[in-house]
Amino acid sequence: MALDSSKTTGFKYVGTRPNRPDGLDKVTGRAKFGADATAPGMLFAAIKRSPHAHAKIVKIDASKALAMEGVKAVVTRADFAEGLTGEDWNILENVMAGDTALYDGHAVAAVAATSALIAKDAIKAIEVEYQILPHVTDVDKAIEPDAPVIRAGAADASVPEGLHPNVVRYYESGHGDVEAGFAEADLVIEEHFTTEATHQGYIEPHACLGTLGGDGKGELWCCTQGHWNVQKVCAALLGLETSQLRVTASEIGGGFGGKTTVFIEPVALALSRKANRPVKLVMTRSEVFRASGPTSSTSMNVKIGMKKDGTITAAQGIFRLQGGAFPGAPCDMTAMCAFAPYNLKNVHQVGYDVITNRPKQAAYRAPGSPMAAFAVESVMDELCNQLGLDPIEVRLKNASHEGTTANFGITWPRIGLVETLEAAKAHPHYAAPLKPGQGRGISCGFWFNHGGETSVSLAMSEDGSAQIMVGTPDIGGSRASMALMAAEVLGIPYENIRCTIADTSSLGYNEISHGSRVTYASGLATIKAAEAAVEELCRRAAAKWDIPAEAVYWEDGYAKPSGPNAGDHEPLHITELTADMGATGGPINGHFEATPEGAGVSFATHIVDAEVDPETGATKVVRYTVVQDAGKAIHPTYVEGQFQGGAAQGIGWALNEEYIYGEDGRLQNAGFLDYRIPVASDLPFIDTVIVEVPNPGHPFGVRGVGETSICPPLAAIANAVSNAVGVRMRQLPMRPARVLEALESKNG
Amino acid sequence: MALDSSKTTGFKYVGTRPNRPDGLDKVTGRAKFGADATAPGMLFAAIKRSPHAHAKIVKIDASKALAMEGVKAVVTRADFAEGLTGEDWNILENVMAGDTALYDGHAVAAVAATSALIAKDAIKAIEVEYQILPHVTDVDKAIEPDAPVIRAGAADASVPEGLHPNVVRYYESGHGDVEAGFAEADLVIEEHFTTEATHQGYIEPHACLGTLGGDGKGELWCCTQGHWNVQKVCAALLGLETSQLRVTASEIGGGFGGKTTVFIEPVALALSRKANRPVKLVMTRSEVFRASGPTSSTSMNVKIGMKKDGTITAAQGIFRLQGGAFPGAPCDMTAMCAFAPYNLKNVHQVGYDVITNRPKQAAYRAPGSPMAAFAVESVMDELCNQLGLDPIEVRLKNASHEGTTANFGITWPRIGLVETLEAAKAHPHYAAPLKPGQGRGISCGFWFNHGGETSVSLAMSEDGSAQIMVGTPDIGGSRASMALMAAEVLGIPYENIRCTIADTSSLGYNEISHGSRVTYASGLATIKAAEAAVEELCRRAAAKWDIPAEAVYWEDGYAKPSGPNAGDHEPLHITELTADMGATGGPINGHFEATPEGAGVSFATHIVDAEVDPETGATKVVRYTVVQDAGKAIHPTYVEGQFQGGAAQGIGWALNEEYIYGEDGRLQNAGFLDYRIPVASDLPFIDTVIVEVPNPGHPFGVRGVGETSICPPLAAIANAVSNAVGVRMRQLPMRPARVLEALESKNG
Repeated sequence: MALDSSKTTGFKYVGTRPNRPDGLDKVTGRAKFGADATAPGMLFAAIKRSPHAHAKIVKIDASKALAMEGVKAVVTRADFAEGLTGEDWNILENVMAGDTALYDGHAVAAVAATSALIAKDAIKAIEVEYQILPHVTDVDKAIEPDAPVIRAGAADASVPEGLHPNVVRYYESGHGDVEAGFAEADLVIEEHFTTEATHQGYIEPHACLGTLGGDGKGELWCCTQGHWNVQKVCAALLGLETSQLRVTASEIGGGFGGKTTVFIEPVALALSRKANRPVKLVMTRSEVFRASGPTSSTSMNVKIGMKKDGTITAAQGIFRLQGGAFPGAPCDMTAMCAFAPYNLKNVHQVGYDVITNRPKQAAYRAPGSPMAAFAVESVMDELCNQLGLDPIEVRLKNASHEGTTANFGITWPRIGLVETLEAAKAHPHYAAPLKPGQGRGISCGFWFNHGGETSVSLAMSEDGSAQIMVGTPDIGGSRASMALMAAEVLGIPYENIRCTIADTSSLGYNEISHGSRVTYASGLATIKAAEAAVEELCRRAAAKWDIPAEAVYWEDGYAKPSGPNAGDHEPLHITELTADMGATGGPINGHFEATPEGAGVSFATHIVDAEVDPETGATKVVRYTVVQDAGKAIHPTYVEGQFQGGAAQGIGWALNEEYIYGEDGRLQNAGFLDYRIPVASDLPFIDTVIVEVPNPGHPFGVRGVGETSICPPLAAIANAVSNAVGVRMRQLPMRPARVLEALESKNG
Repeated sequence: MALDSSKTTGFKYVGTRPNRPDGLDKVTGRAKFGADATAPGMLFAAIKRSPHAHAKIVKIDASKALAMEGVKAVVTRADFAEGLTGEDWNILENVMAGDTALYDGHAVAAVAATSALIAKDAIKAIEVEYQILPHVTDVDKAIEPDAPVIRAGAADASVPEGLHPNVVRYYESGHGDVEAGFAEADLVIEEHFTTEATHQGYIEPHACLGTLGGDGKGELWCCTQGHWNVQKVCAALLGLETSQLRVTASEIGGGFGGKTTVFIEPVALALSRKANRPVKLVMTRSEVFRASGPTSSTSMNVKIGMKKDGTITAAQGIFRLQGGAFPGAPCDMTAMCAFAPYNLKNVHQVGYDVITNRPKQAAYRAPGSPMAAFAVESVMDELCNQLGLDPIEVRLKNASHEGTTANFGITWPRIGLVETLEAAKAHPHYAAPLKPGQGRGISCGFWFNHGGETSVSLAMSEDGSAQIMVGTPDIGGSRASMALMAAEVLGIPYENIRCTIADTSSLGYNEISHGSRVTYASGLATIKAAEAAVEELCRRAAAKWDIPAEAVYWEDGYAKPSGPNAGDHEPLHITELTADMGATGGPINGHFEATPEGAGVSFATHIVDAEVDPETGATKVVRYTVVQDAGKAIHPTYVEGQFQGGAAQGIGWALNEEYIYGEDGRLQNAGFLDYRIPVASDLPFIDTVIVEVPNPGHPFGVRGVGETSICPPLAAIANAVSNAVGVRMRQLPMRPARVLEALESKNG
């Protein structure tokens, strides 16, 4: 008997909007975040950071710090594993500098002491002798011929000969003949665009509590999007067996991709191993800006040819990504996403991963895609403007759909781009009149979504309530979604199910909560685990009735007999089957582990109205509508929340947020006063339309929604502002000074 | 392919003695015990307890306490669920008195405040008006006709008519014709024995941290032998869905059965629900004595008939157990264990469960069996003395063995009693000469051992190390034993495996760590889970080789090909199969859940030499040898530790430990100064002999060892003392005054 609960309609629990299970704990302050863990005998740590963008570390003298009362340990690079290679080496080098400090804020040493104050004083007492080296922080400057080489030999085999050694990875793809395509066009536009590095802006700084013994066994409590990855990386950096390090993910105060790697966790563990005491380490906000992982800054060229009727004849893009002092900027995904919404005969895209003297970039919601969309959709808007075409009609005309070949070579399965465009076109927002000084922009956006390694277990309690164990930290209400999907399969109320994020020692391997994968992959595994439990429940019923298991079916929380003698037996409710489960065969659990490969890509179309103050150049977003294909919205409120969150972050990125480096290579705005994320008063109500084109790779059709929502905003807002001011905005953020400049350039 | 790793010889890891994984954490103070948990905004609780043995609660006035600064909540019985029945009702009534306080120390109210000191002061400010009722604390007095009826109607259907209402349960079994048997005997001895209530004496008092919201969702951290049971009971007492309460078991500083139920956990949760803050509650030592669960006191009559050649012709026992104010004293198990070592034609045993005004008894290592053995083996010793027979030879002559019918009706499977007797006979201790003033005693003992509901999962890490998740708190080194068994199946080093006690929200249901079940049941499930992981590893190898999974076998950490083309493929090491598991099908885990029914009973034979000081009556145990059937000793050091621990606790029980109640019904020795457990200087080195008669119900032959070791000591020591002083000691403890009395009775 293999149960299959797949369906896309007729749901009882899926699609409803119950309260999230962690809600009360979070509003009453009982929820435990990264900094809330304590342990007997705990020490407090602080990190000594380089004030230089690029400098040889000549000598570290910690003797004065170690002589201070209350200081229990100092660690430097010598306290970590040797001989690492590849990404493990990159992460270690970023976590604690080796012989060279590579950016302003790069860790060079750390202290554990009996109080946080002593630890802070002690890092001041550590004396570091530097030999300052030339630095570069700008992506275009970093590939000029005379730019200082940041790390010779860092480039991998993908980089063609002749490029600057700061280009460390290279991506290229496409099909057709773009030159022939451009020749067919009635209008070809090529523009250059730039975006600045932005930070995810999570409210909770990185925080952890680590304990590690000389026996190689340790425990770590931390705020992370993926504790199995933390386990694996920390084990590598500290030379441990992976299984001997137990990692528990705390509640998380925002991550958005920025908590998919480690910055401080290995440091806390190294200090603990040296001091033989648990060590707590919490970043300050300034440290979060200087030394966690912002997104890449970019320099991009996009060229598109179009016929008068709106048909795209060819498209080409070059995407240069600045990823800090280490390889990893998503030059490949940026290039792949760029033209994904379009069904193109001739397309070519190139990506460069460029290193600079900045912190190692980290993921930030759909890494690379928002910037690519900004460049491509700006050119599309300009083409429509100059050809006098409706931007939605043009996009519909060229839209990717099932069966067409994507710009990066795959053949699209069932996708929902056309449906989002149709919904946007039909939305009142698109037809609403604009006031003077206002402009409207639209943009499409694309993200892959991801499956990834997933283990889920489900256990029944004797009272018929159920527990789900997942391994993907809840970054967007996923516990509620898991409980809804399990409720649907089991046929018991949502309130009777608890979904827990198990620690790394309590469940099989799980990939990070990233790639918008949680509701898809952990959801799929939850459904399969619940089906396995239901199969066992049916077997127990069959044994009670003395009929074959195949003759039992499950409906709305009941095992029911089928077949000619079905009338002999009364349906058995789940509570009747769990009450005596110990005596009828033992605990009733369900398990599922796999690397599901049916993740469904998703598309969105955003409509934005912006109003520009001609006196100050300040932009206000006055109306915003997100239309996105969710596949299936398990908990619509949280899907809408993701839509709104992506738009809100996109507004900040488009208008205000940027890492500002001085000539000295130091970050000048490492705090929320100078790095301006949108506050409530900066935002309009963000309207949402959930489109549901089921993903055939998920039993209930889920695609995943977290990332696609941030792909269109930069472009949609830039198009709105460009249309408001009558000048194409090619540089983000569109801060008031920059908009004023544009207005002045137009007015002469 | 169904892998079967069963074997009883040829082990590589099983039977070795590596360090325990929790060792370093425990000796360096990093291990977190019950009182080590903290939470933001945590409150501290204290419990108001009855000073009366039996009293109507007329009124509780908490107004003064609630008016104190820092007091956040007071709970009484009104704050718990209503309408409970059965054992849930009994536990609730014990946790928090309803309309009547039933013993000295019975909880009547509790306070949560911002500091422990304020909480302590606040309970003094709670005014309770009592109406004192007549009480009884002695088991024999409690069934005298004029004894106060403690709880009318508490008796269940097992109790024959005409017994005192304080007899609440009754057990009877046997076979043959005992009267005819006694008539055949050459010598019949009948004696009356008593034992006092003792406490398990765990070093760590009960401690917990609970948080519960008005939404019915809670978390509890506590020191317990069984957190699923805590989850279930607390959910019942607080009216929650079981799955909504997540319970984590801390490290445990001893339990021995005493931490198999709840005393304070529901109180912390009720306070938390009322205060909307986390609440910590830690018992004082005095509270542990007054209001946790000591063992039963007993009054027993045993009568045995024997022929001159040592053949037992009949045996009869009456076992009266005092279990505090609630049903549950193990009168049935006491009666069943009493004559289990003997192959008897005529046997009859009766047990009474008697309630008194004392705290509700709890399990203490082999509940009931030590007292029964004391009575039975004392009479056996006296028979041997009077008939001039060797006590081991007599026991061998009458020993239970495979195929004979036990006193309680089952037919013995393969058991190891004869082997322990033979080993004892062959041990140098048994032939060693005694000095003047010394006596030697021997005794057999029996315990059932238990299976119970068990869920275990195992997960591979990418580096080929493994994690085991079990649900049975580690009370005797079981994490080491689980890791050894998994190492044996997987073929990887012990050091590469971490065994974790998962919380109730991270694993399927698990019964308590009791009944000596952990190494048997969690061990069996670990082996099966590891076999499931090995099967998956073989499937991955088969896929790589493109051969059928059935053609792959597992040997010492390698997948190896078999069959005609085996030579085409090199064996694949486990690390080669786990490294890319995400890409070859996903995480590799193994699971097993069942209620295994093959637990193997175990027997022990102890030899004790005791020396009595004729001036003071003080007894010193000068030599002690434990011989016990372990089935298979997975980690021999911890098996020996269990043997020695049982003997040490038995020495305390036999010689010094007892609950002393005054005429006022109040406990007079609620502390370690007045309740004397043995210290190191009271104990000889306890020698151990591990007998291994494999249990066919476990893949590696494990029986379980924790409880049988405490069954013989009371009798063996009493026999040694009786033989030293020349007077049959029929009352425990054999404190100096009592031994002096015996010497005086003999001498004049």
